[in-house]
Amino acid sequence: MLKAAFPGSFDPPTLGHINIIQRAAAIFDELLVVVAENRRKKYLFSAEERVSIMQKLTVDRDNVTVALCDSLIVDFLQKREIGILLRGVRGLDDFSYEFELSMMNRALDSRIETLFMTTDPKYIVLRSSAIKELASFHGNISNMVPPLVAEALEAKYR
Amino acid sequence: MLKAAFPGSFDPPTLGHINIIQRAAAIFDELLVVVAENRRKKYLFSAEERVSIMQKLTVDRDNVTVALCDSLIVDFLQKREIGILLRGVRGLDDFSYEFELSMMNRALDSRIETLFMTTDPKYIVLRSSAIKELASFHGNISNMVPPLVAEALEAKYR
Amino acid sequence: MLKAAFPGSFDPPTLGHINIIQRAAAIFDELLVVVAENRRKKYLFSAEERVSIMQKLTVDRDNVTVALCDSLIVDFLQKREIGILLRGVRGLDDFSYEFELSMMNRALDSRIETLFMTTDPKYIVLRSSAIKELASFHGNISNMVPPLVAEALEAKYR
Amino acid sequence: MLKAAFPGSFDPPTLGHINIIQRAAAIFDELLVVVAENRRKKYLFSAEERVSIMQKLTVDRDNVTVALCDSLIVDFLQKREIGILLRGVRGLDDFSYEFELSMMNRALDSRIETLFMTTDPKYIVLRSSAIKELASFHGNISNMVPPLVAEALEAKYR
Amino acid sequence: MLKAAFPGSFDPPTLGHINIIQRAAAIFDELLVVVAENRRKKYLFSAEERVSIMQKLTVDRDNVTVALCDSLIVDFLQKREIGILLRGVRGLDDFSYEFELSMMNRALDSRIETLFMTTDPKYIVLRSSAIKELASFHGNISNMVPPLVAEALEAKYR
Amino acid sequence: MLKAAFPGSFDPPTLGHINIIQRAAAIFDELLVVVAENRRKKYLFSAEERVSIMQKLTVDRDNVTVALCDSLIVDFLQKREIGILLRGVRGLDDFSYEFELSMMNRALDSRIETLFMTTDPKYIVLRSSAIKELASFHGNISNMVPPLVAEALEAKYR
Repeated sequence: MLKAAFPGSFDPPTLGHINIIQRAAAIFDELLVVVAENRRKKYLFSAEERVSIMQKLTVDRDNVTVALCDSLIVDFLQKREIGILLRGVRGLDDFSYEFELSMMNRALDSRIETLFMTTDPKYIVLRSSAIKELASFHGNISNMVPPLVAEALEAKYR
Repeated sequence: MLKAAFPGSFDPPTLGHINIIQRAAAIFDELLVVVAENRRKKYLFSAEERVSIMQKLTVDRDNVTVALCDSLIVDFLQKREIGILLRGVRGLDDFSYEFELSMMNRALDSRIETLFMTTDPKYIVLRSSAIKELASFHGNISNMVPPLVAEALEAKYR
Repeated sequence: MLKAAFPGSFDPPTLGHINIIQRAAAIFDELLVVVAENRRKKYLFSAEERVSIMQKLTVDRDNVTVALCDSLIVDFLQKREIGILLRGVRGLDDFSYEFELSMMNRALDSRIETLFMTTDPKYIVLRSSAIKELASFHGNISNMVPPLVAEALEAKYR
Repeated sequence: MLKAAFPGSFDPPTLGHINIIQRAAAIFDELLVVVAENRRKKYLFSAEERVSIMQKLTVDRDNVTVALCDSLIVDFLQKREIGILLRGVRGLDDFSYEFELSMMNRALDSRIETLFMTTDPKYIVLRSSAIKELASFHGNISNMVPPLVAEALEAKYR
Repeated sequence: MLKAAFPGSFDPPTLGHINIIQRAAAIFDELLVVVAENRRKKYLFSAEERVSIMQKLTVDRDNVTVALCDSLIVDFLQKREIGILLRGVRGLDDFSYEFELSMMNRALDSRIETLFMTTDPKYIVLRSSAIKELASFHGNISNMVPPLVAEALEAKYR
Repeated sequence: MLKAAFPGSFDPPTLGHINIIQRAAAIFDELLVVVAENRRKKYLFSAEERVSIMQKLTVDRDNVTVALCDSLIVDFLQKREIGILLRGVRGLDDFSYEFELSMMNRALDSRIETLFMTTDPKYIVLRSSAIKELASFHGNISNMVPPLVAEALEAKYR
């Protein structure tokens, strides 16, 4: 049985993240969506809010679960005996960062393999930080995030 | 009549920005230099200072005007019925960011087209943030910015 | 009156090229599609075939014309008094090449400005060379090129 | 049961390819190494030689098999009911090409997912074309390819 | 006699930095390791700590000395009559930034030449900021930094 | 005494190459310009022509000599006891290729260090292949190559 973890800040998740989750859930037997929490970073949505959003967005997928990780991702995966770390890549810039991260994770634990999937072209433009800025200007983000995220963003920036 | 907008932070403008403005003013019937103000960002020069600097730097160009934008740029352009958003690109790094931005702006309003011009090679090195750092160390920036900007930077870092 | 030229090999044109032409024809008063012919390069379609294809694909656009160029593009534009060279860019790789080309063209004639437009995300994947390889394997290219190009490719690889 | 295909020219395979195969064989239930043959390309080793080399190099892996593909890879995978196309990526340049290829393959058959693994840092330098050039100059390639490939290259360039 | 300076934040130094220093010390007659201090930036280790660490790490190299620079690097080099600025590059992202920096430094003083060395592949993954994050999570960094740096990081994050 | 080698095809040399040679000759005690000849590649100018051109272009530099290399560059440098391989880099694309090449050369002989210098911005645009194409169209290349190269190109394409 092949388990994979899909970690991210998801602050907030975009339609691109959902696209990766749906495609990954069709490949792997089990997919764990990992909401990463780093006390040194600032988030718009709290860890609890982000976990709750991800749970609502994946509720119809039997083989997808959601967990919070506030430690090192390789330690987190070891404890759960998950050997595959899945990452979505929107283009060259993303990959440059991910490439280095994957090598560092392998340096920490060589049993954990990082696999990359590329975002579908229509979602290439969706970056959480840009969507937050857009929402802060009350721009129309309805084609960029799931409806419940759009509502949550509106509530934050009202 | 072809109108184009050239938005930027211009905090402060460099000789590279002036180069783009001069070349763009020769192409388009009207060029609107748009000083972007985002309340979430920190600037060295206030919005008013930046507008004033840009007005002084373009005073000899009849078809160039300057405006302030503190909302979403696509909304700003719609209201003024400007369909062309012009961006200067200094190289691959700039383009990577601009490419994504242009796609997001088209997702927001497909009638607004982004056109890119490349900076002349001799201005490739000029980045506002690096020039500010240089000025803070009292480095010689006289070949990087117009004289009035050099004076304004000196005043800030005295 | 603002005239722009859109040069390319168009061997063959893709839906991405057509997308750029339609958007550019809406911006500029006149758009000249320039079929580039370089005797040192090998093409699948002859210069005459490529000009004929481009004429058929742009026949419904009043302000679009097609011409053949087998000399230096800057000389070609000078003679026709066209000051804008328009290029479509599909992403970073394209831009890297185009950036250099635009600087070289400006070194040859500083009055000719290159403007770049980015391809819509759904056409990012369309590269003429890859489509030819696909067609040679009888892959389904109907969503990648206009119908008459699909037929022309099938005829070539039958 | 999760099957993946790992296609490549393998002309010849490097230690980097072998590294990807070993790591992939540990993840997936079955791994099909696909030797790609394109009649329009020139190879140093014939398709038969490349298949034979890959078979010898993977003989100790029970869940790895080798096949030849001279048609479109998506058609090849459909017939074998393999939904995962695995690609090794050595860095940004590789990824740029692979990113586009993966999007084109998804445009051809949206059920086939491309997953990327990154080459271990010590193999980043290994590119088949560079190794062939090195071998043609009788350079020392013993740390770059498996011993049987080193011998095969020596035989070719004697 | 050829003198070179190797500037950096070294906050903290990694095995990659040490690798560059060792290789550079074998090439140049004298190597000055320059600890850069910018009052506008935040460091984990103070300037004094970083100078002390670099001195301990280079104590066995006769032709390597360490100095602190809190002014413009080109002014610093002029005063010491050092004409070569050496930079280590881990890959494309580093180079993109360094390329611009080197051109700006030449614009400031054309007599100062920047030379680049590439980090050995096994150190490509080592970035000071990532190592600090890792240390903050109590990850195993013993293969990434010299022992005294590992201890210093542990002390900081205890 | 610090010796460096500057290898290249120089088919033909551009003002960018000359710029690197002049700056390098001011740094190193001796500079050996190495004209690379690879029997598998096609050149416009023969090895003898390229050596002769480079000799004429460097005749006024006492510490610059020219040699032909038709073997592996690391073997060539070993025999001459030259430990520094100097490469000029015009930007990210060049560097990507050079980065890999430098790592491969270190894999072949770890005593040979590659150092990179960046081309001055005004020469960034100069690529030998593009200049040849330009010359073939009788474009004006007088600002791109030394006068004797311009004449040699004209003679070739007459």
